[in-house]
Amino acid sequence: MAKDKKLVTEITSMDEDFAQWYTDICKKAELIEYTSVKGCMVIRPYGYAIWENIQRILDTTFKETGHENVCMPMFIPESLLQKEKDHVEGFAPEVAWVTHGGNEKLEDRLCVRPTSETLFCEHYSNIIHSYRDLPKLYNQWVSVVRWEKTTRPFLRSREFLWQEGHTIHATAEEAIEETERMLNVYADFCEKSLAMPVVKGKKTESDKFAGAVSTYAIEALMHDGKALQAGTSHYFGDGFAKAFGIEYTDKENKRVNPHQTSWGVTTRLIGAVIMTHGDNSGLVLPPAVAPVQVVIVPIAQHKEGVLDKANELLERLKKAGVRVKLDDTDNSPGWKFAEYEMKGVPLRVEIGPRDIEENKCIIASRWNGEKADFSLDELESAVAQKLQEAHDGMYNKALENRRNRTYACTTIDEINKALEEKGDGFIKAMWCGDEACEDEVKEKTGVGSRCIPFEQEHLSDVCVCCGKPAKHMVYWGKAY
Amino acid sequence: MAKDKKLVTEITSMDEDFAQWYTDICKKAELIEYTSVKGCMVIRPYGYAIWENIQRILDTTFKETGHENVCMPMFIPESLLQKEKDHVEGFAPEVAWVTHGGNEKLEDRLCVRPTSETLFCEHYSNIIHSYRDLPKLYNQWVSVVRWEKTTRPFLRSREFLWQEGHTIHATAEEAIEETERMLNVYADFCEKSLAMPVVKGKKTESDKFAGAVSTYAIEALMHDGKALQAGTSHYFGDGFAKAFGIEYTDKENKRVNPHQTSWGVTTRLIGAVIMTHGDNSGLVLPPAVAPVQVVIVPIAQHKEGVLDKANELLERLKKAGVRVKLDDTDNSPGWKFAEYEMKGVPLRVEIGPRDIEENKCIIASRWNGEKADFSLDELESAVAQKLQEAHDGMYNKALENRRNRTYACTTIDEINKALEEKGDGFIKAMWCGDEACEDEVKEKTGVGSRCIPFEQEHLSDVCVCCGKPAKHMVYWGKAY
Repeated sequence: MAKDKKLVTEITSMDEDFAQWYTDICKKAELIEYTSVKGCMVIRPYGYAIWENIQRILDTTFKETGHENVCMPMFIPESLLQKEKDHVEGFAPEVAWVTHGGNEKLEDRLCVRPTSETLFCEHYSNIIHSYRDLPKLYNQWVSVVRWEKTTRPFLRSREFLWQEGHTIHATAEEAIEETERMLNVYADFCEKSLAMPVVKGKKTESDKFAGAVSTYAIEALMHDGKALQAGTSHYFGDGFAKAFGIEYTDKENKRVNPHQTSWGVTTRLIGAVIMTHGDNSGLVLPPAVAPVQVVIVPIAQHKEGVLDKANELLERLKKAGVRVKLDDTDNSPGWKFAEYEMKGVPLRVEIGPRDIEENKCIIASRWNGEKADFSLDELESAVAQKLQEAHDGMYNKALENRRNRTYACTTIDEINKALEEKGDGFIKAMWCGDEACEDEVKEKTGVGSRCIPFEQEHLSDVCVCCGKPAKHMVYWGKAY
Repeated sequence: MAKDKKLVTEITSMDEDFAQWYTDICKKAELIEYTSVKGCMVIRPYGYAIWENIQRILDTTFKETGHENVCMPMFIPESLLQKEKDHVEGFAPEVAWVTHGGNEKLEDRLCVRPTSETLFCEHYSNIIHSYRDLPKLYNQWVSVVRWEKTTRPFLRSREFLWQEGHTIHATAEEAIEETERMLNVYADFCEKSLAMPVVKGKKTESDKFAGAVSTYAIEALMHDGKALQAGTSHYFGDGFAKAFGIEYTDKENKRVNPHQTSWGVTTRLIGAVIMTHGDNSGLVLPPAVAPVQVVIVPIAQHKEGVLDKANELLERLKKAGVRVKLDDTDNSPGWKFAEYEMKGVPLRVEIGPRDIEENKCIIASRWNGEKADFSLDELESAVAQKLQEAHDGMYNKALENRRNRTYACTTIDEINKALEEKGDGFIKAMWCGDEACEDEVKEKTGVGSRCIPFEQEHLSDVCVCCGKPAKHMVYWGKAY
């Protein structure tokens, strides 16, 4: 058993090698397994169950905000992809091409969707005729393919799961409002369900989605000080509508182009959860998306009454709506402790003969390692309270990490000094709005622009790079 | 308004042209829309909502029976597909091949999964080592691609949505038990949620899944007398395990090959629902999977109090857990009646000024067109009762259609006569078990073997074709 325990918990320390620590967790917590398809992975039951929870919560919110799910084909004919110039330039170099169906060569080759704007546009052009047909608020849960050179589980893979929202509106105002609404939905979800603080902002011109007028994003800071783009929301204006000939008859009987948006989050969010909350014992899951929120571990389970009592607690917590599991296998308690720590189960309830005698149990919290006794009479309320504490504690811890790793700088030298002395993090610095300066900052410091945050601060009058008048405060960082 | 109404209800009569009637419903009930990707379709919100209900019910059952969801890559390297001889022979001619990633040609080309046995096998070989690792009971909800020549919405398309269950067990007995269990899950689902009776049986050798030891299927009879395979469940023995080198150490420390199954149902079930229950006014949906179970249509809605009362009923039914919608648009009641008939909404509640005065409403049932008054005091119970009646009535009507169209025959002549005089249907006839006779029956009568039903009847001692001793009674039919 001692050997088994060691095997389970043997992962690389995050301080030693953060990338290897990350990969170790993906494998040892049984989130993924590699395959012979380069850059693609198996999402194992425990990993997929996290995604199912993310889906359930987001899908409910999408429906509450008036969206309907649809399903588009996974293929896009090359001729269709080429209709919007910026879009095809951005995506064509990284798509997978289907050239043969069975033994026959295709006349128009098909790409496996890297994103579905072109398919939605074709569909809109078929079904939208009058102002009465607007808006359409659509979403789909599918996988997409982008032929990346270097890949990492969840963070960057050739195939990944996502949802892509696509909406079309009568006016630009409505479409912009939708773009912002969905960015807020994502930010709320990250904070309330993933316990992960995010910065909301606008991408610079160079970092926009291919074909968008403007791209909004939420940016999170990982434990190692690197930034991760956790979700994006795009406003397209009427560019796609013009390229695809989508028109409607307005109330004055004029033919007008409608305005579009799209927005998406991916299985990358699971990678964000690992790198925001994980520690050297493994995964730490936010209660809202944890497949198992509470694991009951019986102590001296062979003793009379222990398993009966453990089963009683199981039923009580199930009834209270908690996702709970009882581990009554013959592994030792120590082995079980290590396993569920690796898997990031938020709470562990220990119950043994002495606890039963004293009508109590021990509740251990994964996120901070604290253990405390609770009367069995108050089991349900204690668990609810501890789960809430876990969420709040994890959120505050992540926020604290971000605060400690956010550096306001007014010169290139200050940026380099901050990164060198304090390690990677968010740099806050002013910018003139010139792409040349953006490139120069990246070249001289290694950090790229992450976003122009909605919450602006005035750090200085001039650009951190060229000294000309500043237009925005920008968050900069090294990115996943 | 009269003109609008005609537009909505203008579909081909099913008696005139069943195939066109089917396509008209798919389009007019807004289930699908065609795309420029040949053989692929858009599943529109109303169609997708039916699939979401199917998913929700089946997924709950799968989890209750111990299955976990996973997600495999959508690509299979050609070298992996080739590992099991029968399997590759069956599928290679009808797969889509990815040959290029971005601008680079792939060394090992990839097929888009037509089914995922090979991927699951590769994964099993990585994660199964000991008898303690068995069984694994997996499922995934994905889309697959088969390069069909002729396609029809839901029934046969190049891409379709499905779930594929894949399980692996220590013994043949356990695997066979699983194969049968899941066939029963499918049959129960069809009967209890789709109101569609099915015949459970085994496929003949010539009709087995590529690589299976035996294939079980549920077969339904459509309104036009053609058969539709509604779900399959395959027992693989240890053939795949041997081909992929999957072994485990048993309790006696011997290395053994485990035994496998797979099972699936697809969006084809939506086609089955259309062709089992639909009529010349459009779709008729079983209450369990209807996106909207009850539509409330206010009469003279401009009159004081009507919309208030309609909203009150809406809230009451929502609270009772009914999927209910109030249509308060300015279309006429007649237009609304026709629209929701086309969309197959099981119940319509009409509420007007006189109804309110008399504290009643009218409930109209889509499946048989009956209308009756109900006191508003008993709205919830009346709706529940009428929904149950709809389900039962639809099931019995479909069963009656099957009974009327099932013909027991003992000679080839009898088969031809029955088909000619009574139209297409199920033929019950004895069979010697010889593939040559199976082919000859098909050639001479046009009906192929659908399945060897579990519920056998003794119709005669000899084969319907060759006159030699019969082994089984077989259901034969023309198939979708």
